[in-house]
Amino acid sequence: MEERGDALYLGVDLGGTEIKATVLAADGRPLWSTKRLAGAGDTREAVLARLIDVAAEAADAMAPWPVRAVGYAIPAVFDPSTGTIELLTNFAGDWTGFPLRDALAQGTGLPVYLVNDVRAATVAEHARGAGRGYRDFICIAIGTGIGGGVVLDGRLYLGSRGVAGEIGHQTMEPDGPRCNCGNYGCLEAVASGYAIVREARAAIAAGDLALDGEPTPYHLSLAAQAGNAAAIAIYRRAGTYIGRALANMICVLNPEAIVVGGGIALAGELLLEPIREEIAHRTTVFAPSRGGVEVVASPLGDGAGALGAAIWAMREVGAAVPAGSPA
Amino acid sequence: MEERGDALYLGVDLGGTEIKATVLAADGRPLWSTKRLAGAGDTREAVLARLIDVAAEAADAMAPWPVRAVGYAIPAVFDPSTGTIELLTNFAGDWTGFPLRDALAQGTGLPVYLVNDVRAATVAEHARGAGRGYRDFICIAIGTGIGGGVVLDGRLYLGSRGVAGEIGHQTMEPDGPRCNCGNYGCLEAVASGYAIVREARAAIAAGDLALDGEPTPYHLSLAAQAGNAAAIAIYRRAGTYIGRALANMICVLNPEAIVVGGGIALAGELLLEPIREEIAHRTTVFAPSRGGVEVVASPLGDGAGALGAAIWAMREVGAAVPAGSPA
Repeated sequence: MEERGDALYLGVDLGGTEIKATVLAADGRPLWSTKRLAGAGDTREAVLARLIDVAAEAADAMAPWPVRAVGYAIPAVFDPSTGTIELLTNFAGDWTGFPLRDALAQGTGLPVYLVNDVRAATVAEHARGAGRGYRDFICIAIGTGIGGGVVLDGRLYLGSRGVAGEIGHQTMEPDGPRCNCGNYGCLEAVASGYAIVREARAAIAAGDLALDGEPTPYHLSLAAQAGNAAAIAIYRRAGTYIGRALANMICVLNPEAIVVGGGIALAGELLLEPIREEIAHRTTVFAPSRGGVEVVASPLGDGAGALGAAIWAMREVGAAVPAGSPA
Repeated sequence: MEERGDALYLGVDLGGTEIKATVLAADGRPLWSTKRLAGAGDTREAVLARLIDVAAEAADAMAPWPVRAVGYAIPAVFDPSTGTIELLTNFAGDWTGFPLRDALAQGTGLPVYLVNDVRAATVAEHARGAGRGYRDFICIAIGTGIGGGVVLDGRLYLGSRGVAGEIGHQTMEPDGPRCNCGNYGCLEAVASGYAIVREARAAIAAGDLALDGEPTPYHLSLAAQAGNAAAIAIYRRAGTYIGRALANMICVLNPEAIVVGGGIALAGELLLEPIREEIAHRTTVFAPSRGGVEVVASPLGDGAGALGAAIWAMREVGAAVPAGSPA
């Protein structure tokens, strides 16, 4: 398809808390952005209406310049050929089997492209963030759940049926806690935000921990930074699991770098240090010069999903993706 | 480089027991093959001399037609840019730091290309075996150790520093038995031939198993086929570990198929059934239509390494690799 220098691309990221939207110019400049509450506890129809409405708001804001395509970043496994949802666990509505892409295309009147939310963030990290300059890297987002994306030979790798990158669903503890996916002891079930909160509640119940507020990852990180041993141990345990899962992927894929993002990663070295230690401890099959990886924190923060969704829309319509332009 | 229809390519596979060699014509026809004992307990010089000697024997047998290049399949991690060995565990000699590619090139007087042994088998499976027709598959070889290869987007994927595919060194039991690589509880340490023999010895010592011969995987498989519960359980335990490691890779890479080879895989359904069951049990993040994989046994057997090494040499000199020609 030909390039149109005046085209605009909208990216919309459906998060568990907020819907975020960003409009990019064809040269990659961000022109406009907004956010609103997602309402994860609401009906499917209500959430869908918000996803359509935010596109209408973007179109109004950009008028008279038209939005050429919309990328929607979705925290779900979906059929990439039909855009039908197969697994979307953190929302109350009944999404399984729902033809989301068609519904969004009809509602917005625009070409719509779906992309998994963390795969969108991976694309953004590659174009603008910590993944810039790497041909092979793994992106992991540690939030309420754990998602991922894999860039191989310079491109987002989606696998034979479009769903590669589910790095949070590797089994770490075969008899561990049940995961939202139905399996037991997934990385997500033992090291995500909800696993950390579960551990924090247990430590509070055992009298090992008192938090100044609700047992959130944020309050837990404050306790850890103040030196509470139970809080430090909870982060260390999660980081060790994450490092072990990453080490296993490093043995298989020999990437140059790991990009760590997501809200839980804001705990910084509390989590990154055990991740790095476990990777070094578990990848002894490689000489350090061969298997060594950079473990870097995402600089893009929680705007990566919407940015990546807009870049995804650019790619899907065949437009050139401007690399390294100001994010 | 131009193609030469009359060129011959030699593949040599250094196994723990035997060195195997195969000569392919440019159109992929196998013209000649041989094998000899590897002598894994001998010095490095003695093994090296055999590797050079088998190439001289091939050149003599093919004269006056010249061998254009040799691929050596090596059970090792090596630096692909220099051909220096970094980890070769199943041989007695001191190989670490040895410039194997240069020594072989000097000894044979031919262009020499090194490839990891299971990556060579993966290339052979892709061109001629169970991997034919798949764009994305994982090859696992279960022998004395456990090795692997990953074909992504139709090509052997070697990662950022040329050593991707070390699927036997994923950590399955963080506090498990020590692995040859230095880590603990690697897949290779809990589910390979040597792990199976270790379990068989323990079952014999406990009085749960009596074998008609040495505790080899072969004799153990006979006992399992005769209904011995301990023998069946040893294969099931190994297969479950292998299935779990494969399930983790399936979540990350979403391949179409898994190709299972290596001597231990000759146990057939004793091993394949628990592999398939564990994969199905652990990949619930995907709808079956999305994550479902074929698990297929290698049809090439123990000739895959030498065949793949010859094909690797063809690729590395820039010759066209004839697909699907009779193996």
